[in-house]
Amino acid sequence: MTGKVFCDATISLDGFSAGPNQSLDDPLGEGAERLHRWMFEEPDMTANAAAIDAIVDAGAFIMGRNMFTSGRGEWDRDWKGWWGDDPPYHAPVFVLTHYPRESIEMQGGTSYTFVTGGIESALEQARAAAGNKDVAIAGGADTVRQYLTAGLLDELRLHIAPMLLGSGERLLDGVGDLTLEAVETSGTPLVTHVTYRVR
Amino acid sequence: MTGKVFCDATISLDGFSAGPNQSLDDPLGEGAERLHRWMFEEPDMTANAAAIDAIVDAGAFIMGRNMFTSGRGEWDRDWKGWWGDDPPYHAPVFVLTHYPRESIEMQGGTSYTFVTGGIESALEQARAAAGNKDVAIAGGADTVRQYLTAGLLDELRLHIAPMLLGSGERLLDGVGDLTLEAVETSGTPLVTHVTYRVR
Repeated sequence: MTGKVFCDATISLDGFSAGPNQSLDDPLGEGAERLHRWMFEEPDMTANAAAIDAIVDAGAFIMGRNMFTSGRGEWDRDWKGWWGDDPPYHAPVFVLTHYPRESIEMQGGTSYTFVTGGIESALEQARAAAGNKDVAIAGGADTVRQYLTAGLLDELRLHIAPMLLGSGERLLDGVGDLTLEAVETSGTPLVTHVTYRVR
Repeated sequence: MTGKVFCDATISLDGFSAGPNQSLDDPLGEGAERLHRWMFEEPDMTANAAAIDAIVDAGAFIMGRNMFTSGRGEWDRDWKGWWGDDPPYHAPVFVLTHYPRESIEMQGGTSYTFVTGGIESALEQARAAAGNKDVAIAGGADTVRQYLTAGLLDELRLHIAPMLLGSGERLLDGVGDLTLEAVETSGTPLVTHVTYRVR
């Protein structure tokens, strides 16, 4: 028995996962930090504890190069990600990249392994590392779209923030026609959680 | 005490309320009839009965000219809408138009009154007709956007269908920045209902 492949993503009511003008100083883009109020503001933060914990409850993670580097240039061999010495993953993280690089062992069970063979190779390695646990597609949006389009995602957990961004990057743009099944719904004033089964 | 101004709208997960190439023969646009499966397919239809009934539970309705005519030309004085002799509204319906026309009494309590004075005039007349009951913005998408942008909507009830359309008309495009509050969430496999308080 193997685990499922899931992805958590927070989007605005008009579908944006990032605002306009994303940069090194403003990786989420203008106005988009408000998307995540449900994770950081009480009383919603406490009420959403289970959903927040579930985001990092996986046996292995896959991350796109933009999420790992956020514009620093993936050729920077000294860069060890945004998450400090003890990242919140506590499991192997497979980073999609074009530049081969040695794996890095971080504290607390997190490791970064750089995969140059594409999304299917990364998934194969992540599944092997996860054993019978789930594999999480950690982001960013382009990586999520690639796995969705390829039919490799089992479960999409959307966290819909009650705001409009009006412009920026839409999580689900260009994925094409897709029919899902809503299997669970819950929420607080600052977010609506919907779990979708993809296949 | 007066009622609230509410609007029900069904959208895809990527925000579309209509598909591409809307026409007289295909008023919802390509692929968009599937948006409304939650209203017509069992067992979801029965499970969603309360949400379906609530759509027409108002003391008066406001409807855009495109929804009333769907491309027939609003100058067609013989046209009495798409809903037959006994429309499902059972209350006064105020139709936004550029062409003055006599009101029409239909069966079952529905009447169509044509308003040439704009959205605020229509709302004023609808509020007067509704008494202490609610006023519903029946659609279409452009009319909903006008009321949202003008700050005249109290409650937006989105019905999010678990599918991607990829192209068509986005309900919330061009409304600008807007922060809402999610006050109620529920759903079935074919839909997620979220009620938002706008102001």
